[in-house]
Amino acid sequence: MDKRQGSRQISVDTFDIDASGYMKISYLSNQLLKCAETHATRHGWGMDELNKNDNTWVLSRVVIEFTDNLPKENEQITIETWVESVMRLFTARNFCFRNAAGTPVGYSRTIWAMINRNNRKPVDLNTICGDDIKEWSAPDIECPITGYTKICVNADEPTDIVKVRYSDIDMNGHMNSCRYIEHVLDLFSEDFHKKHKIKRFEIAYISECVFGDELSLFKEKISDREYTVEICKSENNEVACRSKIIFN
Amino acid sequence: MDKRQGSRQISVDTFDIDASGYMKISYLSNQLLKCAETHATRHGWGMDELNKNDNTWVLSRVVIEFTDNLPKENEQITIETWVESVMRLFTARNFCFRNAAGTPVGYSRTIWAMINRNNRKPVDLNTICGDDIKEWSAPDIECPITGYTKICVNADEPTDIVKVRYSDIDMNGHMNSCRYIEHVLDLFSEDFHKKHKIKRFEIAYISECVFGDELSLFKEKISDREYTVEICKSENNEVACRSKIIFN
Repeated sequence: MDKRQGSRQISVDTFDIDASGYMKISYLSNQLLKCAETHATRHGWGMDELNKNDNTWVLSRVVIEFTDNLPKENEQITIETWVESVMRLFTARNFCFRNAAGTPVGYSRTIWAMINRNNRKPVDLNTICGDDIKEWSAPDIECPITGYTKICVNADEPTDIVKVRYSDIDMNGHMNSCRYIEHVLDLFSEDFHKKHKIKRFEIAYISECVFGDELSLFKEKISDREYTVEICKSENNEVACRSKIIFN
Repeated sequence: MDKRQGSRQISVDTFDIDASGYMKISYLSNQLLKCAETHATRHGWGMDELNKNDNTWVLSRVVIEFTDNLPKENEQITIETWVESVMRLFTARNFCFRNAAGTPVGYSRTIWAMINRNNRKPVDLNTICGDDIKEWSAPDIECPITGYTKICVNADEPTDIVKVRYSDIDMNGHMNSCRYIEHVLDLFSEDFHKKHKIKRFEIAYISECVFGDELSLFKEKISDREYTVEICKSENNEVACRSKIIFN
């Protein structure tokens, strides 16, 4: 592994899989966050360090794509992470998933912003940490999956409505990013998930949801293999996230 | 550590805590299951081994109690587990939680049944594995918290209604045990959880919920510090679980 990378070993346990025996994307996304946090902390840019200046990282985009199906129960996966680039308002962090034999079986691309926790405004990364992070960023490491696409959702009626509850809330008082993913995937039945395995999952986090928000979930079928989802706050139709799922 | 025990190290990460900065009980319960599974597997009684004979463990009761508050972010916790006893239809498995200094900060008592996956009927543990498990069970290790209590819930109207969705379902097609806990704790607001920390959490799993079930959640206030919850299937009022929560 390149010394500019961080890594995390995970095992896919009995309690991390769905009804069809494959790792849950929500579990994987939580492990991505932990891997990213450990790597950022090692370089002095972890959440605790940022919090000292009242700043925090917020996740803006996630793409996860597997060559074949997602890992199954009992598989050992190594997650490798590296920073691809630092722009003024966003930083791009990528991941590679390797199976026990060391073969890449999937990749992920994520985009993060740093915001001030008091005014929720974005922080200029070039001013705050650009040069430092650039020193250990690794734009030359390949991440052979397509980046973010523009996601459109055309649907008049919500497929489901949910409320933001205590268990959904993270330490910042917002719905945690894994829960958005669960809400998206919950728009498909257990039976559908058994018949269709996820090939590529994409999500754009657009606005923060807080305790008590009622969310309307809209779903559009683009083709037999492709769906888009938009989650809006029912009160004012503000978009919370958009997602695209491509099945095998 | 006693050689009849198993253990698991966990760190309380940014993504495992709730809005008030304390470890989520649902996260802890997932870690308990992983710790138990590793320990059982070491002795030949893990899920994979049981599945070969179409049997599986099902969780029947959980009590979790902390001396003070639950661990906070960045704390390192060691979970130790051991089997206290094997009865005809149930086995008792206990846990001790130690902080980084090795001091016990909490305990858990759990009760498990083994059932046949085809007919969902309980298996006679004395016949199947009683003597073997008894050899490495440790009834002499102290677990200084009160066992299960009888839980009554008197409430005419449900406080909330939820549906069982894809993300709630485990590999056996049933709502996973952590999700029951989340549903229970979601009956209290973010604000309530910030003001009241959990001292003792108790849950009895009574019947299995499957995809599509609508659940009615009933809550009774016993005192300012004590609440009981019952989750029933709306269709036929069948009780899915009962829970008691005592706050500090």
